[in-house]
Amino acid sequence: MEAATLQKRLGSAMRERRTALDRSQESFADLIKMHRAYYSAIERGERNITLHTMYRVARGLGVSVKDLMEDARL
Amino acid sequence: MEAATLQKRLGSAMRERRTALDRSQESFADLIKMHRAYYSAIERGERNITLHTMYRVARGLGVSVKDLMEDARL
Repeated sequence: MEAATLQKRLGSAMRERRTALDRSQESFADLIKMHRAYYSAIERGERNITLHTMYRVARGLGVSVKDLMEDARL
Repeated sequence: MEAATLQKRLGSAMRERRTALDRSQESFADLIKMHRAYYSAIERGERNITLHTMYRVARGLGVSVKDLMEDARL
């Protein structure tokens, strides 16, 4: 699978979990203390994020990294 | 959870899957076309790896990224 596809799948999974919580990108990025533009790029699948960043996002969403991978079918 | 702990958990999960396949670090690194020293550092939990790298390792091990996260309890 190409890197862009991996990233898009994971970003979409994060977006779905976030919208299910009724949180805007902005408020969620603030919650996890991440720059809004960076978080937005992650959801669009434009960043090849690290384990540590995945974990920060997953924690903010109240799920495990495994849950996100399962959502993303990765 | 601290970054070092995250990395150690994931690295240990990879090591367990690799040894279950009866593959040396060296032969596995060669298989996935990764520098041996870099792969060794990953298993020791010394690298904060990206999604793309996780996927390369998971593919080589014949599992999903989700499986590795489950093994690592992440």
